[in-house]
Amino acid sequence: MTLENRNLVTIDDLSNGEILSLFSLADEMAGDMTAQYDICRGKIMASLFFEPSTRTRLSFEAAMHRLGGSVITASDVGASSLAKGESIADTAKIIGSYADIVVIRHPWEGAAKVVADYAGIPVINAGDGGHQHPTQTLLDLYTIIKERQSIKGLKIALWGDLKYGRTTHSLIFALARFGADILFCPSPGLGVPQHVIDKLVTEYGGEVKSLDDSIKNSNETLVPVDAIYTTPNSPHQLAMMPDFSVQVELKGGVDALYVTRPQKERFTDKEQGDGKNTQYPVVDKKLLEAKAFRRSLVMHPLPRVDELAVDVDADERSMYFKQAARGVPVRMALLAAFLGLKETRIPPVESPVLPQYPGYRQEPVPICPNPHCVSIQKTETKYLKPEYKIVKTEPLTLRCVYCEHGFEPKYIASTEGYEHKTDGKKYHSANSHWAKDIKPENLIVFSSEEEARALGFTPSHFVGGHH
Amino acid sequence: MTLENRNLVTIDDLSNGEILSLFSLADEMAGDMTAQYDICRGKIMASLFFEPSTRTRLSFEAAMHRLGGSVITASDVGASSLAKGESIADTAKIIGSYADIVVIRHPWEGAAKVVADYAGIPVINAGDGGHQHPTQTLLDLYTIIKERQSIKGLKIALWGDLKYGRTTHSLIFALARFGADILFCPSPGLGVPQHVIDKLVTEYGGEVKSLDDSIKNSNETLVPVDAIYTTPNSPHQLAMMPDFSVQVELKGGVDALYVTRPQKERFTDKEQGDGKNTQYPVVDKKLLEAKAFRRSLVMHPLPRVDELAVDVDADERSMYFKQAARGVPVRMALLAAFLGLKETRIPPVESPVLPQYPGYRQEPVPICPNPHCVSIQKTETKYLKPEYKIVKTEPLTLRCVYCEHGFEPKYIASTEGYEHKTDGKKYHSANSHWAKDIKPENLIVFSSEEEARALGFTPSHFVGGHH
Amino acid sequence: MTLENRNLVTIDDLSNGEILSLFSLADEMAGDMTAQYDICRGKIMASLFFEPSTRTRLSFEAAMHRLGGSVITASDVGASSLAKGESIADTAKIIGSYADIVVIRHPWEGAAKVVADYAGIPVINAGDGGHQHPTQTLLDLYTIIKERQSIKGLKIALWGDLKYGRTTHSLIFALARFGADILFCPSPGLGVPQHVIDKLVTEYGGEVKSLDDSIKNSNETLVPVDAIYTTPNSPHQLAMMPDFSVQVELKGGVDALYVTRPQKERFTDKEQGDGKNTQYPVVDKKLLEAKAFRRSLVMHPLPRVDELAVDVDADERSMYFKQAARGVPVRMALLAAFLGLKETRIPPVESPVLPQYPGYRQEPVPICPNPHCVSIQKTETKYLKPEYKIVKTEPLTLRCVYCEHGFEPKYIASTEGYEHKTDGKKYHSANSHWAKDIKPENLIVFSSEEEARALGFTPSHFVGGHH
Repeated sequence: MTLENRNLVTIDDLSNGEILSLFSLADEMAGDMTAQYDICRGKIMASLFFEPSTRTRLSFEAAMHRLGGSVITASDVGASSLAKGESIADTAKIIGSYADIVVIRHPWEGAAKVVADYAGIPVINAGDGGHQHPTQTLLDLYTIIKERQSIKGLKIALWGDLKYGRTTHSLIFALARFGADILFCPSPGLGVPQHVIDKLVTEYGGEVKSLDDSIKNSNETLVPVDAIYTTPNSPHQLAMMPDFSVQVELKGGVDALYVTRPQKERFTDKEQGDGKNTQYPVVDKKLLEAKAFRRSLVMHPLPRVDELAVDVDADERSMYFKQAARGVPVRMALLAAFLGLKETRIPPVESPVLPQYPGYRQEPVPICPNPHCVSIQKTETKYLKPEYKIVKTEPLTLRCVYCEHGFEPKYIASTEGYEHKTDGKKYHSANSHWAKDIKPENLIVFSSEEEARALGFTPSHFVGGHH
Repeated sequence: MTLENRNLVTIDDLSNGEILSLFSLADEMAGDMTAQYDICRGKIMASLFFEPSTRTRLSFEAAMHRLGGSVITASDVGASSLAKGESIADTAKIIGSYADIVVIRHPWEGAAKVVADYAGIPVINAGDGGHQHPTQTLLDLYTIIKERQSIKGLKIALWGDLKYGRTTHSLIFALARFGADILFCPSPGLGVPQHVIDKLVTEYGGEVKSLDDSIKNSNETLVPVDAIYTTPNSPHQLAMMPDFSVQVELKGGVDALYVTRPQKERFTDKEQGDGKNTQYPVVDKKLLEAKAFRRSLVMHPLPRVDELAVDVDADERSMYFKQAARGVPVRMALLAAFLGLKETRIPPVESPVLPQYPGYRQEPVPICPNPHCVSIQKTETKYLKPEYKIVKTEPLTLRCVYCEHGFEPKYIASTEGYEHKTDGKKYHSANSHWAKDIKPENLIVFSSEEEARALGFTPSHFVGGHH
Repeated sequence: MTLENRNLVTIDDLSNGEILSLFSLADEMAGDMTAQYDICRGKIMASLFFEPSTRTRLSFEAAMHRLGGSVITASDVGASSLAKGESIADTAKIIGSYADIVVIRHPWEGAAKVVADYAGIPVINAGDGGHQHPTQTLLDLYTIIKERQSIKGLKIALWGDLKYGRTTHSLIFALARFGADILFCPSPGLGVPQHVIDKLVTEYGGEVKSLDDSIKNSNETLVPVDAIYTTPNSPHQLAMMPDFSVQVELKGGVDALYVTRPQKERFTDKEQGDGKNTQYPVVDKKLLEAKAFRRSLVMHPLPRVDELAVDVDADERSMYFKQAARGVPVRMALLAAFLGLKETRIPPVESPVLPQYPGYRQEPVPICPNPHCVSIQKTETKYLKPEYKIVKTEPLTLRCVYCEHGFEPKYIASTEGYEHKTDGKKYHSANSHWAKDIKPENLIVFSSEEEARALGFTPSHFVGGHH
C-alpha cells in the first residue's frame, strides 16, 4: 500500500497500522544507512524552519541526503519573506512549486496545517508552537518498540514540563492509541493542559485519575505521580501516598521514563519568576536506583539542560542518544513513503476509531482564544476562515481545527429557534439545558451578550445574571 | 550556439534572440522537471545572499538541484566576511575558485557587476539594491509569452511602487525591447525614476507621454494611468480624463496588469510618514471587473502584502503563482546554458541595437552621487575605479557603469581648450552651448567650481552666476 | 595506508609524512576537480559553524560536493540548541549519529577536541577560538611546497597580528616541524603569545632569539623583525639595527611573507583604544621592492582589510588567492582520507618526535585560567573533567589538554610528603627547589594558599611571604 501524497500534521494523521508499516520501512533503512541513496534521486525536500532548531532540521536533512535527494533550506525565514509581511499560505504555495515535499517548523500553532492546505505537495510538521511534533513522537514510539517489542500494556511515565513540551502532547495521544498506561509526573505547576486531558478521555477512552493528598502512603519504592491515564480495561494497581506531590507504587515497575526539559522560552513572565525552573526535578543515577525504575528505558527528546544528569549516559537504560539516532531512519521512511518511492505493508493491527465531530457551521464564527493560533495572526486572517468542531455538549466545547485548543462559549442560540417559532431570536447561557438540545448544524455561539444583542438576539430565560 | 561563460548582470546582457532561446530551453526543462538531474552533475553553484530572500534563493537552489548540481549557500554573509571588512571583489575571486557559477544578491547597486568582473566564472544577478533583478524579468516575460505567445504590441500596465521596485525597472526595458506599450499606474509619489524614463527614451526609442489634468474625460471604463510608453510606430488610442490621477481609455483592454508591493524597506523616512503605504492602490476582484481588465493577466513578483487581494487567487487571470513556479525552469535553463552544458537555438528575431555611448576618459573622475552605488562604498573604493558613459549632451549626462544612475555635472572643461589655444585652462557651465561641442574624449567635468579652481581652471564667460 | 577515522584537532594530529601524503592526494584531486564526484557518494559531512565564517565553511562544503557527498549545515547554531543550553558534547553525540564526518568551528578554545571526544566519527577543526585552525595551515604548507618544492631551510616571515591570529599559531608549529626558520614581524604589541613560544622551544627544539635595541644597524635592505626562530643546526645570518622595531638583514632574502589582518574582534577594549589598528604595518608594492622580498611568496589567510594593498594582486609573487583556491583540493583529500575512501602513500620522511608529557593526576584539579577555554564553560563543566600535562618544572608549568594554554601554579605539595613522612601535609611555593623534585604522579597544585589550607595543608619553609 502507498502513503504517497500524505501529510503528517498531527500524529492522528497516521493509523496505528500505518505507523507500524513505517517502522518496518525504518528497519530496512537502518539496516544499511549508506545504501539508500538512489531512492529519492532527483527529488527536493524544502526544509522551512521559522524557529531555530539545529537538531530536528539536520535530522530531516540527513534523512533526505541518505536517500540521495536534495534539500533546499530556509532556517532564517523569520528574517526574510515573513518580515515583508507574506502569509504562510503564500509561502506554502510557492514552495510547493519548487520542491517535492515540505518539512515545516513554525512558532504558530496550526501553521503546519495551513502549509498542508496550500502547498499541494506532502507536508511534514516538524513542530508548530506548543501544538504537536509528530515525528518526534514517531521516533519515541519506534524506540520503545525496538526495545520492548510492543507498547500495549506498558507503563510510561512522563516527567517534567508537561505543560509546554509539545513533544509530550503528541506522545500522550500516540501512547493511548497503542494501549499504554501513562503516568503523569509533572514539575510543580507544569501539568498536562486540560485540552490534552479532555481529548485523551473523549477520543481514546480510558480514564484519567488525579491522585490527591488523601491517597494512602505505601512503604514500597515510589514514583511521584500527579495523575494516571489508564487505557480501557487496563487493571489498576495503585497504592498512593500524600505528599507535596502524590505518589504511586508500581509493582511491575515503570517501563519507560520520558524526561523533558523546562521549556523556559515558553514560560510566562510569572512562571519565569516562580522558580519553576529551580524546583525542576532532576533524573540522575541515584533516582534510577529506585526499584520502580529497575528496567525503565530513560528517554528524552533532547536537548537536555540540567534535568537529566550526565551520569546516566553510560547506563544501559539510557535511550536518548539512541532516540536521536533512530530519528534518521524513521524520517527516511516517512520521506520515501510520502514521496511514493517506497511501498509499505500495513500489518493487521487495530487502530482506535477516532470520533467524527460535527463542525460549527453558523455565523458568527468565533475568534480562537489561543494567542499562538495561526488562525488569528494578522498575515493569515486574509486567507483563513476559522473552523471549529463541536467536541462536547456538557460543557459545550468547540475545538479549533488549526491549533486544536478547545474553548467553552458563554452564550448560544439556535437557527431553529427563530426560523420555526414565533418568539423571535433568543440567546441562552451555554450551560443551560438548551445547549445539548440544539442540533450541531443549528448551533450559534456568541463570545459575549453584547455580540448576541448586536446581532439582534434577546436574552431568553436561560441567561444567568445578565445586566 | 552556446551561452557558456556569460554573465547576467542586467537584462541588457541578453539579446532578444538569446532570451527566446532560453525560453525554449525552459520549455524543455518544464516538460519533465525531475528528469534533468544529470545535466549539472559535479557542478557547484554558489548562492550568495547578502540580503535575505528566501523565495529567490530557494528558486535558484531548486533549479540547480533539479539539474543534479550541488549548491553552497551563504545567506548570512552580512554577518561574516563582510563584517570583517572584506571587499566584494575579494569575495568574488575566492568564491570563483570554489564554485562553477555564482548567484548573487546584494544591497549595493552595481554589486553584481563587481562580482562578474572578478569571479572568473559566470555570474547571475539575483537583485542588486534598487538596480536590477533580471531573472525576475525573464520569468515575467516567459509567463507573458506562455500565455499570449508574443509580447509585441501588448499593453502592459505596471501598478503600484514603480519607484523602488527593481523588478519593474528591468521589466520596463525588456518590454520596450520586445515591442510592448507600457502603461505606468504608480501609487501617488512612487512613479518611475527619471533615469529609467531617460534610458527608455534614448535607448529603446518610442515615446513617454505624461498624462495630465487637461486630458479629457471619457465615459468608458478606465484605468488610472500616469504616463504611457509607446514603442516606435505603435498607434495611439488614448482618450483621457482629469482626476487625482489621470485616466486612459483602452479600447482593446490591458493585456497584463503587473502589480508590485510597496517596497517599504527602501522608503525614505519622509515617505514612511507620508502615508504612501495607506494610499496604496489595491487590486482585487472588483477592480478586475472593469472592462479594460477583462482579459488581463494579473501578475506580481511576490511576496505580496495587501496590494493584491486574496480573492483574486482563484481567478483564472491570476498568474503570480504560475510566475513563481516558472522561475524554476527558467533558472534551470540559465544555469545549464551559462555552464555550457546545454546548447541553445537562437530564433531569427530582431533585437533593438542599443547605442554605444562614449566613455568619460579624463581626470577628475567624479564620485557617483547614488549613495547605494557599489563604487562609493568604503570597502570597494580600494579596488574600483569609477567609470561613466556620456549618455546625453543636452543636458550633459553621465551614467555610472555600476549602478546605471545618471547625473548632470554642473561645470565642464575641455582638454583641447588649453592644449591648442592660448587663453589658458577655462571651465564653463555645463548648460552652456559649449557642452555639446566638446568631443567626448576631451571632456572634463567638475562637481563644483571649487574643484575646477583647485585644479587650476579659471571661469570662462560661460559660467553663470559664479561668486 | 589509511587515515580512516582520524581526527584533525591540532596540526600535531598529523605526522609530517601523513601531511605530505595528503598533499599527494590533493594533487590528484586538483588534477581534475570536477571528476571526483563518485568518491563520497552517499556520505554526509556535517558543517557546524558556531561562529560565522563564509569562506572556510564554503571551502569545506565545496570540497565535499566535489567529492559527490552531501552536506548538512548549521551556520546559525549560536541561535538554536546552544541557546537552549545544550553542551557541545551532547551536540557532538547527536551529530555523530546523523553524519559521517564533522567539520566544526567554535569560539571556545578546545571545542573541537570535545567534539572529537564524543562524536564517534572523524572530526576536523575549522577553527576553535584563538587556538588552532589546522586546515588553514595545511593549505599554507601545500602552497609553499607547490611553489618551493620543500619547506626545509626556508625563511618564512610572519607579519602583523601574531597574537590573536590563530592561523599563525598552527602554522608556526608546522613550519618548525618541517625545518623552516621563522621571522616574527609583529605589529607593535601583537607579538606571538608566550605559550606558543614555549611550545616551540620545548617541543620542536631550536632557538627563539628576541632581537633588541642593542642590535647594530646594517645598511642593507631590512625587514622589521622582532624575534627569530631557528631550527636546530640552522646557520644564523643576522645583523640587526635598533629601531621602534628591530631589524634583521637577510642575505638570502625571505622565502615567504605571511601577512595577517588585525583580529580586531578579539582585541581587548584597551587594545581597541590603543591604536593597534592604526599603527598596523601595510604590505604593498613599495615594500615588496625591498631586496629581501625579491623572491618572496606573499601569503595571507584572507579575508584582508587594509594590511595588504590591492596593488600587490597582479604581482606574480602574490599567493593569497591561490592559497584559497588550493584549500578545496586539500580539504577534499582530508575528507576522502578520513572517511576511508582514499588510501594515502606516506613518503619516507622524518617527523620530529613530540615529547610525551606526564599528566597531572591528583586533586584538586585546577581550573584553566584561559577564559575562552571550553573546559570552564558553564554548559561543559557537567561533562568535562579538566586535564593537564606537566610540560615544564622550572618554572612548573601545566598545560590544559583542551586549549593548550600553559600556566604556572603558585603553590604545590606532594602526595609523598604526607603519606610517608611524619611532618604532616605541607605546601610549598612552586618556585622553591621542591617543585622539580616532586614526581609528576605525586604532584599537587593549588591556585592559592587559601585553597591549600582549606584542604588541610600547612605552609612549609618554602613558602615565601605568606600572610
